[in-house]
Amino acid sequence: MRRREACPLPLAGEGQGEGAPQARPYNPPMNEFALIARHFTRKPRDADVILGVGDDAAVLRVDADREWLATVDMMVEGRHFVAGADPRNLGHKLMAVNLSDIAAMGGRPRFALLAGALPDSDDAWLAAFAEGLFALADAHGVDVVGGDTTRGPRTLCVTLLGDVPRGAALRRSGARAGDDVWVSGTLGDAMLALAAIDGRIALSPAALVAARLRLDAPTPRVALGEALRGIASAAIDVSDGLCGDLAHILDASNVGASIRRADLPRSAAMDEALGADAGTTAYDIALHCLVAGGDDYELCFTAPSRARAQIDAIGETLRVRVTRAGVITAARALALCDEHGRPVTPLPRAYDHFAAA
Amino acid sequence: MRRREACPLPLAGEGQGEGAPQARPYNPPMNEFALIARHFTRKPRDADVILGVGDDAAVLRVDADREWLATVDMMVEGRHFVAGADPRNLGHKLMAVNLSDIAAMGGRPRFALLAGALPDSDDAWLAAFAEGLFALADAHGVDVVGGDTTRGPRTLCVTLLGDVPRGAALRRSGARAGDDVWVSGTLGDAMLALAAIDGRIALSPAALVAARLRLDAPTPRVALGEALRGIASAAIDVSDGLCGDLAHILDASNVGASIRRADLPRSAAMDEALGADAGTTAYDIALHCLVAGGDDYELCFTAPSRARAQIDAIGETLRVRVTRAGVITAARALALCDEHGRPVTPLPRAYDHFAAA
Repeated sequence: MRRREACPLPLAGEGQGEGAPQARPYNPPMNEFALIARHFTRKPRDADVILGVGDDAAVLRVDADREWLATVDMMVEGRHFVAGADPRNLGHKLMAVNLSDIAAMGGRPRFALLAGALPDSDDAWLAAFAEGLFALADAHGVDVVGGDTTRGPRTLCVTLLGDVPRGAALRRSGARAGDDVWVSGTLGDAMLALAAIDGRIALSPAALVAARLRLDAPTPRVALGEALRGIASAAIDVSDGLCGDLAHILDASNVGASIRRADLPRSAAMDEALGADAGTTAYDIALHCLVAGGDDYELCFTAPSRARAQIDAIGETLRVRVTRAGVITAARALALCDEHGRPVTPLPRAYDHFAAA
Repeated sequence: MRRREACPLPLAGEGQGEGAPQARPYNPPMNEFALIARHFTRKPRDADVILGVGDDAAVLRVDADREWLATVDMMVEGRHFVAGADPRNLGHKLMAVNLSDIAAMGGRPRFALLAGALPDSDDAWLAAFAEGLFALADAHGVDVVGGDTTRGPRTLCVTLLGDVPRGAALRRSGARAGDDVWVSGTLGDAMLALAAIDGRIALSPAALVAARLRLDAPTPRVALGEALRGIASAAIDVSDGLCGDLAHILDASNVGASIRRADLPRSAAMDEALGADAGTTAYDIALHCLVAGGDDYELCFTAPSRARAQIDAIGETLRVRVTRAGVITAARALALCDEHGRPVTPLPRAYDHFAAA
């Protein structure tokens, strides 16, 4: 089970800084992850379930050569997107978040099913939504093979099936002490855009346009994921923010990590936002976006240090920035070090939309 | 693409009788089916898509021996179920409607993915919902292998994967003139329950309980669907009412059918409802439920007449009532004959929830 939110930002009353006191505990007694685990995670009975709930996609045995991947993502108006959002962007993003899950497993996306509740049958809206969805689906060779539509509050859901060579799926559980921690692209831009749109920070027009593009039309790293098969030891996509998503790798792999904040890949927009004076609210928000902003749909992955040159070469070939941002440690803790090498405490937590507001 | 609704009942202003004038045409210029076809039905590019949008489930090539089936169904509060509905029933029904799609393809259900928007994280609600969902999943050997949860208006979505021997999937397109039209179980009970709950008809307490069970906890005909492989020439599940769903078989098979209303399988509750005086509103509503009520999740299938004994034997073995209700004709029209052999016109139409109210 996954979930992702468009709003993994500090909530009112929590303070804005990473180090600011938080009104709520990092792990509330029954947060969403616990909720899901408690009710919906059960040991699969079918031996063909290689991997069930708990990674970016399920892994299902098909035949001697291949495994299938299956993932589902739901987007709700008012939560993942605002009313009146550009339907073309919505179609793109709904497909993108699912492609990103398959990418995080190292898979080849294949077949999609679309389910949607819509308040009306607005022909122009549907045409634009379909255009956005199919454009990205086509770009990745995905066929939409089925679906379901109904009337209701605007809610959009895609199930995506993919495949990988048998045993080749990238999991969260393979990270080993000494591995590098890598990140694709740049981090925090989507949340930076949201903060600017909400008026909590100021961005130049050019920076806002660039950041907003990341929020509205993220680029799933499908080719990178496929190229990392046999090279990466673990992978996840950054949908809930780096700290939260990396923590899933650490939990699943029973390891820790040390991340250097200064090494996290930043866009020009992020650099601009971090140009604010340290200690100001704007600076703190930008920092939070960088380390805990969600909705980026970049890959966070780990690999042995011997693979560095190979991974750099993959990045160059695919024209995808890949950045080493830290190292996996044996101690089961996530340490985020600031520009002076000091650990940031407490760590920004992943957004939990079921925690009491 | 499928859709199904909990309310395929006559709409206000349409009159209640099957023969009553209808305020809107049977096929509005842009009904839901046309809407879906226009925007989301495209020729698959991948040769491994044996059958895409347009049947109860997609059929995907896996290997030399097997094909996979994939279907998705979404249920929305206020449309498919009322606020406050028993979460155990909801879990059951969400799994049941998907199982019914796999059954209609003659498939073996295998793996489910669950996506849901929930207004809150009510632990008791989730526990009961999971109980209902898993009880039926377990009964059919289905593992829940992944999912997504978010906060939003209560919307529940299951994607179900199944498999069939290669080439064995039951499609809508295989009906031939002269084939019998069969129906499993009894028809119209779910809609009868809804009409009684809404106060539009009266039912005895025992009849209401029995009908309501069909509405709240339908029984997907999975074993029947599997047993009909190689025997049935076409199949669909009755989710939108017999007339509408049979029409899908006729369209896909390029044939017609003649159905005898008197031969449609009726429950004791339906018999009770049809005990009202002919010509009364209550009688007309009951008749409408029988021929066009939805949400039954029975199978409607066709088979050559030589298979009659075999199908009767299957029904006996599985303890599922199977009834011959008519015959496939070469003329491309659906004729529903009343108790006097006279055609009913116009035919009750399938519920279209995107048509203007």
